[in-house]
Amino acid sequence: MADKSPDKIQLLPFGGLGEIGMNMLGIEYAGKILLIDCGLMFPEAYMFGIDLVLPDVSALEDRRDDIVGLVLTHGHEDHIGAIPFLWEQLGEPVIYATCLTLGLLRNKLKEFELDHRVELVQIKPREKIDLPPFQVEPYRAAHSIVDGVGLAIRTPAGLIIHTGDFKIDQTPVDGENTDLARLAELGEEGVLLLLADSTNVENEGYTLSEKTVGKVLEEIIPQCPQRVIVATFSSNIHRIQQIADAAKLAGRKILINGRSMVSNVDIARQLGYLTIAEEQFITLRAMRDFPPEQVLIITTGSQGEPLSALMRIALGDHKQIELEAGDSVILSSKFIPGNEKAISDLINNLYRRGAEVFYEKTSEIHVSGHASREELKLVHNLVKPQYFVPVHGEYRHLVKHKQLAIEMGLAEKNTLVLENGQKLSVGTAGLKLEEPFETGRVFVDGKGVGDVGRMEIRDRRHLANHGVVILLLAINQSTGKIVHGPEIFTKGFVPEDNQSSEALLADAKQAVCDLLNEHSQEMLSDWEELRVEVRKVLRRCFNKQIARRPLILPLIMQL
Amino acid sequence: MADKSPDKIQLLPFGGLGEIGMNMLGIEYAGKILLIDCGLMFPEAYMFGIDLVLPDVSALEDRRDDIVGLVLTHGHEDHIGAIPFLWEQLGEPVIYATCLTLGLLRNKLKEFELDHRVELVQIKPREKIDLPPFQVEPYRAAHSIVDGVGLAIRTPAGLIIHTGDFKIDQTPVDGENTDLARLAELGEEGVLLLLADSTNVENEGYTLSEKTVGKVLEEIIPQCPQRVIVATFSSNIHRIQQIADAAKLAGRKILINGRSMVSNVDIARQLGYLTIAEEQFITLRAMRDFPPEQVLIITTGSQGEPLSALMRIALGDHKQIELEAGDSVILSSKFIPGNEKAISDLINNLYRRGAEVFYEKTSEIHVSGHASREELKLVHNLVKPQYFVPVHGEYRHLVKHKQLAIEMGLAEKNTLVLENGQKLSVGTAGLKLEEPFETGRVFVDGKGVGDVGRMEIRDRRHLANHGVVILLLAINQSTGKIVHGPEIFTKGFVPEDNQSSEALLADAKQAVCDLLNEHSQEMLSDWEELRVEVRKVLRRCFNKQIARRPLILPLIMQL
Repeated sequence: MADKSPDKIQLLPFGGLGEIGMNMLGIEYAGKILLIDCGLMFPEAYMFGIDLVLPDVSALEDRRDDIVGLVLTHGHEDHIGAIPFLWEQLGEPVIYATCLTLGLLRNKLKEFELDHRVELVQIKPREKIDLPPFQVEPYRAAHSIVDGVGLAIRTPAGLIIHTGDFKIDQTPVDGENTDLARLAELGEEGVLLLLADSTNVENEGYTLSEKTVGKVLEEIIPQCPQRVIVATFSSNIHRIQQIADAAKLAGRKILINGRSMVSNVDIARQLGYLTIAEEQFITLRAMRDFPPEQVLIITTGSQGEPLSALMRIALGDHKQIELEAGDSVILSSKFIPGNEKAISDLINNLYRRGAEVFYEKTSEIHVSGHASREELKLVHNLVKPQYFVPVHGEYRHLVKHKQLAIEMGLAEKNTLVLENGQKLSVGTAGLKLEEPFETGRVFVDGKGVGDVGRMEIRDRRHLANHGVVILLLAINQSTGKIVHGPEIFTKGFVPEDNQSSEALLADAKQAVCDLLNEHSQEMLSDWEELRVEVRKVLRRCFNKQIARRPLILPLIMQL
Repeated sequence: MADKSPDKIQLLPFGGLGEIGMNMLGIEYAGKILLIDCGLMFPEAYMFGIDLVLPDVSALEDRRDDIVGLVLTHGHEDHIGAIPFLWEQLGEPVIYATCLTLGLLRNKLKEFELDHRVELVQIKPREKIDLPPFQVEPYRAAHSIVDGVGLAIRTPAGLIIHTGDFKIDQTPVDGENTDLARLAELGEEGVLLLLADSTNVENEGYTLSEKTVGKVLEEIIPQCPQRVIVATFSSNIHRIQQIADAAKLAGRKILINGRSMVSNVDIARQLGYLTIAEEQFITLRAMRDFPPEQVLIITTGSQGEPLSALMRIALGDHKQIELEAGDSVILSSKFIPGNEKAISDLINNLYRRGAEVFYEKTSEIHVSGHASREELKLVHNLVKPQYFVPVHGEYRHLVKHKQLAIEMGLAEKNTLVLENGQKLSVGTAGLKLEEPFETGRVFVDGKGVGDVGRMEIRDRRHLANHGVVILLLAINQSTGKIVHGPEIFTKGFVPEDNQSSEALLADAKQAVCDLLNEHSQEMLSDWEELRVEVRKVLRRCFNKQIARRPLILPLIMQL
C-alpha cells in the first residue's frame, strides 16, 4: 500500500546502491512515483554466460499507474541501458531527457523496435517540467558524456537534489560547466535531501579537466611516425572531439571504427554535439590511398573485449586493418575494474606486433568523469541539505561518502547508507527505514531475460571448474536387469585418449559396478537413491584419485 | 645437441619472459647448464579449474646430466614454487639458496615428502660458489622478502649479472641494502650480459622504501578504537616485523592467523629474521581475555581469496573471529591485477560489518618490492653491460625495459626482447637467436600435473557459458529401431521446472524427432553422422529461440 502522508517523501532504490551500474531510483510522494534513470550493469566474472544485468522492478508491478514519468540524467548505459527491457514492465512511462540522451536512447529503442511506441520528451537545463505532485528542474552537470544533467525535484514535502553522475570541470570542452550557480541558489532556497554520486569518493582532491587530455593528445599524436589508432568509449563525445581536433592539427584524416563508435558519432554530429568537418573523415577503402602518417583511427575496444576490432587488430585477425611495426595505439580510457587482465593482454599483443602503446598507466591520456572528494565537498557546502543519502557506488563508496558528509558537519542521524531494496522515508520525522521491497539483479542471457538464476550460475561454475561426468545406465523395466552400462562420458574433466584418464575412468566404472553388485534389486528400482549413491561413489573416486570435483550426472533409463 | 663453443653463453628461458610469474632460466656454457629459479604462476581467469601453472621443462629431459645446479634468488612462489613438481624431472639437481629461502623451500619440500631427498646448499652474499664451468657470486638484493640476492655468474665467455627481483631501498628494514658497491665493482670488471627485473618498468621515479609503510602503520594503528586486523603477504617478513613493531608501540598483543602466515612467521623467527618477543604473541583462545583495543591480528587473505580466513571474517562465517562495528582492517598489500574485483568485494563486505578499512587506494600502506625506472637506470649505469636482456615481465614490460636500455645508450643491436622458448646465444659474435625449444605452461589441476590442456580448458569455457545439453537416444541393434528417446537433459542451460524451458526443450526434442523421421535408416546406423546432425539441429534450435550456445552432447546407445 502506498503511503500518502503529505510531510515526507520515500526513496525506492532499485539499483546503483551497492554497485557501480544499473542505476535506478524511485521517488514516491503522496502515492505517486517519479523514476530516475533505468540503467544496466555489465556482468561480473562469476556471472558465467550472462550478457547484461538489469534491476528487478517487479515491486512496481502493482504501481504502474502511479508512475508519473521516467527522467534520465544522461545517456550512459548504466543510466539508460535497461529501458528497452523494462519499459513495458514499468507500464510504458513517458521518458524525459536532454537532447543527446534522447538521441542515444532513440537509437537503442530502434534496435528493439520500440521507437514508435515510447513517448520521449526533451528537457533542458533550468527549464522546469511538471509531473504532479513533482516538479523537476534539470541543471547542467559536466560528465564524461555531453548533455548530462542533475535534477532538482520539488515536492510539497521539500526539495530534493539528485546530482546524477558529475564532476566539476572548470574548463569543460563544450563550455558547459556544472551549474554551481543554480545549485547555490537551490541551496539557499533550502534542500530537504541531497542524493549525490559516490563513484570517486576514494579520490582525494579534484578530478582533472577533460581538456587536459586534449593537450596530451596534441603532444603525443604529432610524434607518432606512422598510423595512429585511438581507442576510447564511444559515448565520450568530448574525447572524440578532442581526438579529432588533435588529428586535424597533426594533418591526419579520421577513420571511425566499431559499431557503437560509428553510430554515436553519427548521432552526435546530427544533433550538433560534434564539430568535425565532413572532409576530415575517410572510409576504410579510402584509407589505403593515404600514407600512414596521415591517418588516425578512432575505435572501440579499449577494454580488451575479445571480439572487438582492436583486439582482432592486436591479434592480426582483422581483415581490413593491419598493424605494422612503428604504428601507435593510444588507449584513451580507464582500466575498468575486472577488465585489467584483458586490457593488459591487449597491450602485450599490440607490442608483440611492434606497435608503441600509450595507456593510462604510462601517459595522462584519460581523466575520470566523476567528482573527487574536494568537488563533493563543494557540492555539500553549496546545497547544505537537511538529509543526505549517497548514491551510485559500491558499499564502501557509500560509507565513505556518508563519512564525508558527517565530516562536513551533517548530523550523523541525518545521513545513512541505503541499499537496493530498502525503502526510506525522508521528512519532518527524519530518516526512517520502511519495510524493504523485493528487488535484485535480473540476468540477460541471450534472448532469455530473468530465467537464469542462482541455480544455473552455480551449475555453470561447477561445470567451469572440472567439467561434467555422465554415468549412463539402462535397466530393463520388467526384469530389473541392467541392459546397458554403466558407461561413462566426460567433457572438460580429463583428456580423452589418454592412458591415465582411461585408467581413472575404468576405476570409476568398476566402483559403480561394485556398487550395483553389492546392492539389492530394490535399489535398482529406487532411481532417486541409485542416483544419489552413484554420485557419491564417483565423487569419492575422483576426489581420491585426482582431487577434482566435476559435475556428476547419473542418467538412468528404464527400458 | 649442446653447443660447446667457448666464446659464448646461451640463454634458455623457461618462464617469466612474457608473464609475471613462473620465473625460470637456464644458462648454458660449454654444454653445461646452470638453472636460476624454478617458480610457479597462479592461474589466470580463463584457466578454469586450474590450481597452479608451471613452466614446461621437457626440453631438459635429455640434458639432466648437464645441469650443474639450481640457484635460487629468493623465496617467493614465483621463484621457488615449481620445485616440488619439477625437481625429479630436472634430474634431482642440488639447490643453492640463502638461509631464509632454504627455510621456506624446506617447508614446501616437507609437504611433498621430498625434504630428505633434496640436497640443499646454503649460500651467502659475496661468497663465491663453484659450479664448473660457472662460478656464482650472490650479492644482496633488497626486495619484498628478506634474504634475496642477485647473481654474478662468471663463465669463460664473460660475466653475467642476473638481478633477480629487486628494488634499491635506501632504508631497508633490516639494513640490508641492495649491494650497489659490489655491482659497481662488477661493472668496472666488465659485464658481458645484464639480465634485469622488468616488473615495475612502467613506474617513473623511485619505489618508496619499505620503512615508509612502518611509519604509516604507526600513525594508523594507535587511532583505531577497537580490534585491528592487518592482512598482508605471508612472505613479506619485513612487513610483518613492522606491523609487530607498530602493534607493540600501540600496546597491542599479536595473533598470527592463516596457515602460511603461521608457518612463515615460525620459520623466520627460528632463523632469526623476525624479532618479536614471545610474550607479544597471543593465541586465539587467549585473545578473548584481552580488550579489543589491545589486540592486533596479522592474517593472510589480502587478495580476497574466497576461502581465506579474512573473507570468512568479512562474511561473518568465521567461527572464532567475529568482526564488530568499529573494528579496523588494514590491507597492507597490493591489488594484484586480476584480483581487483575479489578485493573490492572483500572491502565492501568488511564495511557491511561496520569495520573501517584502510587499503592501497586510500592509504599509503603498501609499497612495491620492485625497482622503478630511476632505479633500473642506476643499475644499468653501474653495470654497463655489453648486452642486455630484460627478464621478469609481461611482453610490454620487456619492450619498455629494452627501450630504457637503449635510452641509456646501449646500441639497439645489443639488446632484444626474448620470450620463453627462444634460445639466445650471447658472445663475441653478438646476440643470436637459435632454434627455439619446446616449452609452455603446464597446468596443475588437483592431483593432475600436465594432463589438462587446451581442449579441456576450451570445453570448460564452453560449459561455463551456457552449460551442457545431453541428447539421449537408444537404438535396437538388430531392428535399427529407436527403443528409447530422444530424451533431453540439461545443466546450467535453462532453469528446470520452468514453463518456457519446458516449451524450449519440447521444441528441441521435436526438431530431433523430425530429423530422425526425415532421414533414412542408414543415418541411424552411421552414428558419427547422426551425432553431427543432431548437434547441428539442436544448436540451430537453441540459437534461434534463446541465443545460447550450450555444449551439446549426443549420447547414442546401441542395445
